[in-house]
Amino acid sequence: MSAAITAEEINAYLAEAFPISGQRCIDVGERWAIAAITPDERARRPGNIISGPTIFGLCDAVLWYALFGAVGLEPMALTSELSIRYLRPAQGDTVFARAELHHVGRRSVIGSIRCWVDDAEDKTVAVAQGTYIRPQARS
Amino acid sequence: MSAAITAEEINAYLAEAFPISGQRCIDVGERWAIAAITPDERARRPGNIISGPTIFGLCDAVLWYALFGAVGLEPMALTSELSIRYLRPAQGDTVFARAELHHVGRRSVIGSIRCWVDDAEDKTVAVAQGTYIRPQARS
Amino acid sequence: MSAAITAEEINAYLAEAFPISGQRCIDVGERWAIAAITPDERARRPGNIISGPTIFGLCDAVLWYALFGAVGLEPMALTSELSIRYLRPAQGDTVFARAELHHVGRRSVIGSIRCWVDDAEDKTVAVAQGTYIRPQARS
Amino acid sequence: MSAAITAEEINAYLAEAFPISGQRCIDVGERWAIAAITPDERARRPGNIISGPTIFGLCDAVLWYALFGAVGLEPMALTSELSIRYLRPAQGDTVFARAELHHVGRRSVIGSIRCWVDDAEDKTVAVAQGTYIRPQARS
Repeated sequence: MSAAITAEEINAYLAEAFPISGQRCIDVGERWAIAAITPDERARRPGNIISGPTIFGLCDAVLWYALFGAVGLEPMALTSELSIRYLRPAQGDTVFARAELHHVGRRSVIGSIRCWVDDAEDKTVAVAQGTYIRPQARS
Repeated sequence: MSAAITAEEINAYLAEAFPISGQRCIDVGERWAIAAITPDERARRPGNIISGPTIFGLCDAVLWYALFGAVGLEPMALTSELSIRYLRPAQGDTVFARAELHHVGRRSVIGSIRCWVDDAEDKTVAVAQGTYIRPQARS
Repeated sequence: MSAAITAEEINAYLAEAFPISGQRCIDVGERWAIAAITPDERARRPGNIISGPTIFGLCDAVLWYALFGAVGLEPMALTSELSIRYLRPAQGDTVFARAELHHVGRRSVIGSIRCWVDDAEDKTVAVAQGTYIRPQARS
Repeated sequence: MSAAITAEEINAYLAEAFPISGQRCIDVGERWAIAAITPDERARRPGNIISGPTIFGLCDAVLWYALFGAVGLEPMALTSELSIRYLRPAQGDTVFARAELHHVGRRSVIGSIRCWVDDAEDKTVAVAQGTYIRPQARS
């Protein structure tokens, strides 16, 4: 099977709905997505370190894009819970995140996320795991 | 016992180190802190909802301030892990977060956080729980 | 308001449904509960330390009892997610857990839990936070 | 590179240290491990469902075995934090868990875990993510 949406379609939606977020979808599949952000000064710490909340925001976004890959554009899907672990400082220009879905249910979508910086894909800077609630099921 | 630092001292530090974050410390005690942010357009969703990552960023910050309340200013303390649960949309202008510390160790500090919007302190919008690693113990 | 159930009623249900779990409800309110377990050898580690999964199981149980306090006996409510942090070794005979609910929705219940051992209530051994999904909303 | 220990060595250690846990290591690599448990009545719910805390306990164990695979037997490594998400009821006889390590540091080890039941490896019943603290670094 193939993804329910393309990265171009996700980015077109983001450009309209969140023109200044800076987050972009790099690629998307039926149960996964890759996203990136090249944050500006506001999201940096001394030593050219990308801030933790910026990485969290990217994890949150890439899980949403993976959900889009599974079920199509669903803007009203909302993060229910997300936990993140930071492994090493995210030193560099661009942080990438890849989400894999474990579960695509009628009410919820659950996935894991791994993050790295620039071309150091083997040096994980953070991992996360979380749940989106799909629109009809919001409590 | 009293806090190792005041809210004014924390805000003076933030104004110098993170002049554009918008986060501020409202109050701080020996094992707790309260923080707030009144985010601009970038951090808002349709319906005047404050974005999830903005709330996460505030949880992350207020746990840091509570750590300062316990041990004094410690800029190199780093978030090790943080999990957040969203309870209802954060509709309003200003989101507040209160952190309570459960543990202040030589190597780590663990706390819980509760968030609300404007003066609706009894309507929790998010809860979180997480760990900071203190400088000498970074792995 | 008062709790929707008493500790005696919860314990009567547990004795019938889970006669060998060893977990018991100590007290319950409208949005909170206290539980305890005095585990046998199987759940102990060298040094009379109560095992981590035993503490997790008690956190899971006490959140369920707090849900009962809020809405009455609801055996089909299921844990959706739970995160736990261990603060110090749980040395002693009986571990206690107290859950506080942050949210009681039609579909989900969210709460925080704090654990201690024997009469050292001020020495937290673990904290947790998690979500139960109520029967009608299982995804 | 190869694992620092074999599944047989881990099981020999478990048989001596935890003779009645029922958990066993199926296989182990340099950065991963697979574990299983076939729980008795105590860990079952109506409908032949394996209990949530039993699955949590297996996640906790398999992350420990993966750590052994990376650094050798290290009984004093302790769970620092672990979060679990349940995806569907764990109906069946034996639950399996596979841990993958993202980080093997001097002070901490971080990994993700996926669980399934019997031979339905593609039907994930739970996912987890967590941190072990290595002996020299306990806070």
